[in-house]
Amino acid sequence: MEKYAIAAIPGDGIGNEVVPAAMRILDVVAEIHGGIQWEWTSFPWSCQYYLQHGMMMPSEGIDILRSFDQIFLGAVGMPNLVPDHISLWGLLIRIRRELEQSINLRPARLLKGLRSPLLHPADFDLVVIRENSEGEYTEIGGRMKKGEDEIVVQNAVFTRKATERAMRYAFEQAKKRRNQVTSATKSNGISHSMPFWDEVFREVSTDYPQVTTSSQHIDALTAFLITRPHDLDVIVASNLFGDILTDVGAAIMGSIGIAPAANLNVDRKYPSMFEPVHGSAPDIAGQGIANPLGQIWTGKLMLDFLGYEEMGTLLLEAIEFTLQSGIKTPDLHGKATTEEVTTAIIEYLQKTC
Amino acid sequence: MEKYAIAAIPGDGIGNEVVPAAMRILDVVAEIHGGIQWEWTSFPWSCQYYLQHGMMMPSEGIDILRSFDQIFLGAVGMPNLVPDHISLWGLLIRIRRELEQSINLRPARLLKGLRSPLLHPADFDLVVIRENSEGEYTEIGGRMKKGEDEIVVQNAVFTRKATERAMRYAFEQAKKRRNQVTSATKSNGISHSMPFWDEVFREVSTDYPQVTTSSQHIDALTAFLITRPHDLDVIVASNLFGDILTDVGAAIMGSIGIAPAANLNVDRKYPSMFEPVHGSAPDIAGQGIANPLGQIWTGKLMLDFLGYEEMGTLLLEAIEFTLQSGIKTPDLHGKATTEEVTTAIIEYLQKTC
Ligand SMILES: CC(C)[C@H](C(=O)O)[C@@H](O)C(=O)O
Ligand SMILES: CC(C)[C@H](C(=O)O)[C@@H](O)C(=O)O
Repeated sequence: MEKYAIAAIPGDGIGNEVVPAAMRILDVVAEIHGGIQWEWTSFPWSCQYYLQHGMMMPSEGIDILRSFDQIFLGAVGMPNLVPDHISLWGLLIRIRRELEQSINLRPARLLKGLRSPLLHPADFDLVVIRENSEGEYTEIGGRMKKGEDEIVVQNAVFTRKATERAMRYAFEQAKKRRNQVTSATKSNGISHSMPFWDEVFREVSTDYPQVTTSSQHIDALTAFLITRPHDLDVIVASNLFGDILTDVGAAIMGSIGIAPAANLNVDRKYPSMFEPVHGSAPDIAGQGIANPLGQIWTGKLMLDFLGYEEMGTLLLEAIEFTLQSGIKTPDLHGKATTEEVTTAIIEYLQKTC
Repeated sequence: MEKYAIAAIPGDGIGNEVVPAAMRILDVVAEIHGGIQWEWTSFPWSCQYYLQHGMMMPSEGIDILRSFDQIFLGAVGMPNLVPDHISLWGLLIRIRRELEQSINLRPARLLKGLRSPLLHPADFDLVVIRENSEGEYTEIGGRMKKGEDEIVVQNAVFTRKATERAMRYAFEQAKKRRNQVTSATKSNGISHSMPFWDEVFREVSTDYPQVTTSSQHIDALTAFLITRPHDLDVIVASNLFGDILTDVGAAIMGSIGIAPAANLNVDRKYPSMFEPVHGSAPDIAGQGIANPLGQIWTGKLMLDFLGYEEMGTLLLEAIEFTLQSGIKTPDLHGKATTEEVTTAIIEYLQKTC
């Protein structure tokens, strides 16, 4: 019996609905497998926590997390209560950086039973490898002068180490897939970081002669993702560009509510963190209608990362089963509740095995 | 008779095919109107020019352009000949900045006869107001250290003046439309420029109590543009975010080949520049199959800006007529050449008037 200590952080809004749902399902998967045991510990770190304690997590929060095997996170952010840059930098982005989760792996594919907003979605199946530790997301910069002369400088920082690491990871993924990597750039408009990004991409690609490469400006690539998603396979992108591309990926899958993400500490020195792409959706929180599929699919990524690919595949099958049966939450134009989707998945798992 | 001195810069690739096509059409529009006369002067500034002269335009290029009423530009960039950041900063971006074309106005709407890649595009009709003078596009920054320790810093610069100017322009547009402005932000990840952007947006919005506002993170907003484009009306965005959103807008219209843009010097102190959103498309250049509709629609924006809205409307009607008649270039799944589309538009204009 392998035991895994998992830190569950439901966070804000619908995170409190979809995380417990996905935990129940992961427990059923563990039972079916017979050799896995999850030891869940939940942490209330969130905007509510901030309002009480003046911080998003306790000062020893990162050390606490280090003692876990993995982290299972819902969503962070309640802009009406706490400004987004405070809540995110105090929890989500902080964990990503301090636990060196330098790769954000985000698949997007056409699931059976799901209606894409595209007329001819064909059969797309791609993965975005997003650099997750630096780039456009920085707290470096500041303001100067007041009133009409005010100037704000924001720095983006790119290192060869992190850039190369993301690219090598993308090429390694490509070798297991269609041997094709597309790099998201914007070197025509952004004069230092992006020409550098292109340079590293060209250099790294020489180590993978079997992999076909292409470089596309982010504007054109985002459009491409809409018009010809099936022509894309592995995309490597900076922090910001990966963020945008994966929301587009989620949209063309049929709902932001289903896309998963894995923040990977690739050396497995510290825990990785599994979280859906969607946010806390304050507008529908508390109504019991949040789509749990993003969180559940995120659970599949955790199973894969731990080496239980068979269980991961089973879980994705269960997801597709509920979709094909029409057991869908309102964001997918269905009438089911979070609870009904969860129960349907559990029943499928129990029946099938 | 109003005479307008127009500097035509076909630029690279298909720019050399679509600019002459649109010029012919604009001449016919002028004839029909009876009171307009275009005085065209063409400039060969391009990557080819760079290869011969070591610069994208002569050193007095900007002064030359200043003496014109407006600029009609095709596309710039030939990455196989000249690195993009050199060609773009040497011509397109340089003109935008030195001629203080601080607003980039880019409409996106569902045209009759055009097939959107969306299943239910409904009847969207929106305009993106893109800040066009600063933001993420800067040449400020640099590199430090060599080899595996290399670090690259890229600065984005936002001023209150330019930010506020773009926002006020957006609110003014909104008053003539659906009284609704959506601001593209990313203040959850980008800690200085984007919280500042949000702050200015909130401040400016208090001057327009009749206008409904909403702030969306760029990732979610890009997805929104795909799933519910008809719920958007005026979007105000930074240079980079506007760039991305308008390519998505073009994609959901049915082709990148049709979206127009106007780089506006709003005080009319210097010429404005009209250019399509698409690039030079080296892959199809020289084959006579480039879609001229983006360039032609861009001509409509020039007519509008000069106060000939009726002529602009007529031109858009002519565009829709060719689309509904199935006279379409290959990017729109048709078989027509650039020449055939151009002739069809001219015939429509001559027949109708
Ligand atoms: C060519 C490039 C620099 C340009 C931009 O990003 O502004 C283009 O994509 C556009 O949208 O006009
Ligand atoms: C909440 C936000 C900071 C975050 C990001 O931009 O990384 C989210 O959009 C995501 O994609 O995980």
